[in-house]
Amino acid sequence: MIKPVVGIIMGSQSDLRVMIEAAEVLEELEVPFEVTVVSAHRTPHRMIKYAEEAAKKGLKVVVAGAGGAAHLPGMVASMTCLPVIGVPIKSTNSIDGWDSVLSILQMPSGVPVATVALDGAKNAGILAAQIIGTADKKIYKNLEAFKEKLKEKVEEAVILMETNGYKGGKIGFNR
Amino acid sequence: MIKPVVGIIMGSQSDLRVMIEAAEVLEELEVPFEVTVVSAHRTPHRMIKYAEEAAKKGLKVVVAGAGGAAHLPGMVASMTCLPVIGVPIKSTNSIDGWDSVLSILQMPSGVPVATVALDGAKNAGILAAQIIGTADKKIYKNLEAFKEKLKEKVEEAVILMETNGYKGGKIGFNR
Amino acid sequence: MIKPVVGIIMGSQSDLRVMIEAAEVLEELEVPFEVTVVSAHRTPHRMIKYAEEAAKKGLKVVVAGAGGAAHLPGMVASMTCLPVIGVPIKSTNSIDGWDSVLSILQMPSGVPVATVALDGAKNAGILAAQIIGTADKKIYKNLEAFKEKLKEKVEEAVILMETNGYKGGKIGFNR
Amino acid sequence: MIKPVVGIIMGSQSDLRVMIEAAEVLEELEVPFEVTVVSAHRTPHRMIKYAEEAAKKGLKVVVAGAGGAAHLPGMVASMTCLPVIGVPIKSTNSIDGWDSVLSILQMPSGVPVATVALDGAKNAGILAAQIIGTADKKIYKNLEAFKEKLKEKVEEAVILMETNGYKGGKIGFNR
Amino acid sequence: MIKPVVGIIMGSQSDLRVMIEAAEVLEELEVPFEVTVVSAHRTPHRMIKYAEEAAKKGLKVVVAGAGGAAHLPGMVASMTCLPVIGVPIKSTNSIDGWDSVLSILQMPSGVPVATVALDGAKNAGILAAQIIGTADKKIYKNLEAFKEKLKEKVEEAVILMETNGYKGGKIGFNR
Amino acid sequence: MIKPVVGIIMGSQSDLRVMIEAAEVLEELEVPFEVTVVSAHRTPHRMIKYAEEAAKKGLKVVVAGAGGAAHLPGMVASMTCLPVIGVPIKSTNSIDGWDSVLSILQMPSGVPVATVALDGAKNAGILAAQIIGTADKKIYKNLEAFKEKLKEKVEEAVILMETNGYKGGKIGFNR
Amino acid sequence: MIKPVVGIIMGSQSDLRVMIEAAEVLEELEVPFEVTVVSAHRTPHRMIKYAEEAAKKGLKVVVAGAGGAAHLPGMVASMTCLPVIGVPIKSTNSIDGWDSVLSILQMPSGVPVATVALDGAKNAGILAAQIIGTADKKIYKNLEAFKEKLKEKVEEAVILMETNGYKGGKIGFNR
Amino acid sequence: MIKPVVGIIMGSQSDLRVMIEAAEVLEELEVPFEVTVVSAHRTPHRMIKYAEEAAKKGLKVVVAGAGGAAHLPGMVASMTCLPVIGVPIKSTNSIDGWDSVLSILQMPSGVPVATVALDGAKNAGILAAQIIGTADKKIYKNLEAFKEKLKEKVEEAVILMETNGYKGGKIGFNR
Repeated sequence: MIKPVVGIIMGSQSDLRVMIEAAEVLEELEVPFEVTVVSAHRTPHRMIKYAEEAAKKGLKVVVAGAGGAAHLPGMVASMTCLPVIGVPIKSTNSIDGWDSVLSILQMPSGVPVATVALDGAKNAGILAAQIIGTADKKIYKNLEAFKEKLKEKVEEAVILMETNGYKGGKIGFNR
Repeated sequence: MIKPVVGIIMGSQSDLRVMIEAAEVLEELEVPFEVTVVSAHRTPHRMIKYAEEAAKKGLKVVVAGAGGAAHLPGMVASMTCLPVIGVPIKSTNSIDGWDSVLSILQMPSGVPVATVALDGAKNAGILAAQIIGTADKKIYKNLEAFKEKLKEKVEEAVILMETNGYKGGKIGFNR
Repeated sequence: MIKPVVGIIMGSQSDLRVMIEAAEVLEELEVPFEVTVVSAHRTPHRMIKYAEEAAKKGLKVVVAGAGGAAHLPGMVASMTCLPVIGVPIKSTNSIDGWDSVLSILQMPSGVPVATVALDGAKNAGILAAQIIGTADKKIYKNLEAFKEKLKEKVEEAVILMETNGYKGGKIGFNR
Repeated sequence: MIKPVVGIIMGSQSDLRVMIEAAEVLEELEVPFEVTVVSAHRTPHRMIKYAEEAAKKGLKVVVAGAGGAAHLPGMVASMTCLPVIGVPIKSTNSIDGWDSVLSILQMPSGVPVATVALDGAKNAGILAAQIIGTADKKIYKNLEAFKEKLKEKVEEAVILMETNGYKGGKIGFNR
Repeated sequence: MIKPVVGIIMGSQSDLRVMIEAAEVLEELEVPFEVTVVSAHRTPHRMIKYAEEAAKKGLKVVVAGAGGAAHLPGMVASMTCLPVIGVPIKSTNSIDGWDSVLSILQMPSGVPVATVALDGAKNAGILAAQIIGTADKKIYKNLEAFKEKLKEKVEEAVILMETNGYKGGKIGFNR
Repeated sequence: MIKPVVGIIMGSQSDLRVMIEAAEVLEELEVPFEVTVVSAHRTPHRMIKYAEEAAKKGLKVVVAGAGGAAHLPGMVASMTCLPVIGVPIKSTNSIDGWDSVLSILQMPSGVPVATVALDGAKNAGILAAQIIGTADKKIYKNLEAFKEKLKEKVEEAVILMETNGYKGGKIGFNR
Repeated sequence: MIKPVVGIIMGSQSDLRVMIEAAEVLEELEVPFEVTVVSAHRTPHRMIKYAEEAAKKGLKVVVAGAGGAAHLPGMVASMTCLPVIGVPIKSTNSIDGWDSVLSILQMPSGVPVATVALDGAKNAGILAAQIIGTADKKIYKNLEAFKEKLKEKVEEAVILMETNGYKGGKIGFNR
Repeated sequence: MIKPVVGIIMGSQSDLRVMIEAAEVLEELEVPFEVTVVSAHRTPHRMIKYAEEAAKKGLKVVVAGAGGAAHLPGMVASMTCLPVIGVPIKSTNSIDGWDSVLSILQMPSGVPVATVALDGAKNAGILAAQIIGTADKKIYKNLEAFKEKLKEKVEEAVILMETNGYKGGKIGFNR
């Protein structure tokens, strides 16, 4: 197995439901990664170790997902010079996701977290790939192909709608 | 000097503007305390040390104030079994205080933070004294006297308003 | 039965659905407690009696849960010098829980309520135990053991994920 | 002096800055009223006495203003069968007024508070007069005249704007 | 049939789902009322007629429920001197009810609407009865009995919980 | 087929679920229109082409629906002088619709988007017809008839409620 | 004077501070307009008359600005088939503008209001001109020139920044 | 001059007040960068050109700041495979910054923007440097030194507070 360059961590195993999309898109983009559970509040020492060893063991980017008073992304960012991507998760005990978003986004001056949309794990994966892609031409090419595919999917929908009319059920639209 | 039983910490020295009220009310209630700066994001190891030694050095309660993505109270709570009181601070870069409130209040199951109102450092001090007061009769008596004074102040306002009428400027009311 | 030191009250019997978690965790931590219904708006005199007798009958902490315009925790706090822990409940007629949170958290200067997360009754129970633990070594030890168990549960998840991979269904994750 | 039929109360004397508008409009509408300070959290027994005696001493309506976790209107409503009008006040420690609004408005089923706009003390006064006016023809007539004056003021502005053009400074508009 | 003194109106027949509770509680309190549909935006002239004739035909209070950009209560209030109670309804196209609440509550100076909680039609009915009760002793007595019943219901829950323990399923609590 | 004067576009084919109501009401009002998918973020060049050719090919109004960080309406508005109507869509990854609403409504000075309610595609269609109706008498007449029908529907509900009473199930109200 | 085709109305003369920008941009774009004060709540009959006569007297678009519980735009829209543009105004008694925005934007199905940004009167003027421009080539040309000027202003800023560097004070930037 | 690897762009020259902090920190960290004005809504073609040429001319990261309905970061991200960092700016016409935050953060699946805190331009600069640092050891070292300095500043505050007491005015604290 190739050495991982992206580390995906999450506060609880129940967050995997959301965070798996980061893993899947990195797989698709051929970026080697690792996945594990690191809780800021239940395993603070494990978090410190993870953050401080991340760069040494070859990681280039950390993707951290957490919900509620979500301290994991920011705390990891405080202990590494690697870019940290934060995924706010709308967990059960979250107030409509606002707590997750604000406690990841609003980091104080000096310690940034690259925040993506609520439950936006897929975008976190793509962003990690983009960061790797700034120095890795193969990954950059994969991203270009990925962008092309996004476009093609829209174009297919356009053709289907033109063929069937907007009332047609054939474009995956059921009323 | 008597050994402090309450530790007041804050994420940045600029937070002292708010947090000084916790110190002042503890002084008034005769609860020994200490005050210092501990930043979750800029001095994570200092924070860990503070949290892990708090109980050993005799503290009974930690009062932690922070603003924005405020991780200090929750992270300290993750590393001590003492009660931690969190003061959400409406700092300059805060979104109307919502970020501070939510990132302190919405702690995950297992790791509580006793949250008070936005910029509510005075109440944090009183709450700390109440906790000390559960096992210290003198402090409990001081709290009773404090509560009595709150009542008396309202009663003075009542008398002044009855004497001067609601239009009178004598009750500290200027239009 | 041992004399209760924590009093758990709630505005309505329907809140027991949430508040039972405070009782369960206090049981687990071996803190003696009592549970009853006290409504600020429907039984104000019962509330006054409860608040004013709480300290006399040996309670050290009151845990009060309420939803909507949630006045119970704050009103009890106005009539006792014991620490009062407030649990904002997301009841049916609540506006996404914001009303419950703000009407418990934003207490005026002089009368604190130790607020926990929305529906965070378990954390309220733990916080009550932490307060008792400041003067009771056995309870403090129980809290240390509880914290240890939180950590172990995460470590189990870590091992399971390493063994089965993040796609494995064995860690309680179904897609 | 005529016996007051409206009681205006507020949580703190500093709220008089806002609440005076209720008094002024009641004066204008010739509705007899009284004004005093009653704090739910600092003088709970005074509040209970006020609420329970309100009807007996001849009051028909209570207007209660409070800010932050504003419990005064709702608690008074819990102890009287008179209509209670709540004025949410945007006090210094309020989170943009949302706390005041929600902790007055979102009363549980069975105990209504007639809530007006944030800092809407004038409207609280008018509403109190409308309630008195349902059984008092003179007050009802005064309200009709008041409504007429509101209309006339707009009509004056219309004429001024037509005379001077929208760029004219004469309608109290300075750029 | 006795002449109605309370008029219950709503913006759409689908609002009856919520507004029926106002009717039911008025029935219980023996206050005569009428119910109909009046839409501010679809039948503006019907609304004007309703508002302007309300006092003439003997109504003392209008209860108006509406959702989304809810203009019905405020517009009726602009055309009558009777007290108008507004019920914000969380309709399908509402943004979590905030639009309904704010467009009813935040009336400009001069034209109050007595606003109750989101979907709080029952409280609107009680408030209407309280207004009638300021001049009608029988209704006032009915309100006292109603308040008494609220208290008794809580006391029953207290007894049940004491008898069965908080884990008992007998108090209508199923896990 | 008559040349379309309204262009309905949406960011994704899944938005058709909402946007079809714009098409249906335009059909009802006899305004010729076209429907297609144009994604600001996945097909930016297609969007530019659409916006820049809209006026040339005879469109008079563009109706654009999008969710989340919804840039489609605003970006189209930046590249055409036609009026653009924006429909904020509450898509799956939206934070209660606030993101959709604010990223369409809050356009900077110089580039307006005519924003309608969340998921308000039907109103977008009517608004488009109103714009066409400013210069097309037939469409204006159709709008008058449409308005009349809105009124009649309310009047039918009124009659039904009067006939059956508010408890009757006959007006489409099931409890 | 040429007959006005756009009617600018506002709830209060104090709103002119914001609404004047609609007038100024219409002047710049050479669209004839009229300006006056029409209050939904203080002059409801004047509002009805204005709305019902708007089309007859030759207006093609109504621009209506209001703050707080802002009913003017929606009520006018309920009584005309002309497009109505709503400007939410952040008035003194507004809750951060949310009340103004939501009570204008969230109109029920059947009665649209074309809402622009908070205090976005200039954009309301441009949007009105765009609607006129759908059938008036001169106005459309003026809009194209206006758009060109927006672009040129940015290009000037670009050149200045390139010439002076980003630290230069010459581009209207003072620290 | 060394070829820039970070491009800083902003929607309007007035945003430079905030965005200059990104430039200053990149200067401090010795990362070559360029700064210019690119408006999504006023110069869409300039934006397209900038986005599509960014990678070709050697940029590795784009930092884009914008306020209100802030489309610049997301639109640039739609047309490049480079990582794009978005800075939500609390501009004059913003609703407390929520519009800026949500219209940058909530990007749809497939097109991420790395969002930082409201007005968090300094953190955007640091994050850009961290991305460059993943492949550039010198920059990574500079980041380590930068982090060390953050820590030292806190430690200085700690010593000052210990020396002067929390009441001392010497730590930049004026009451």
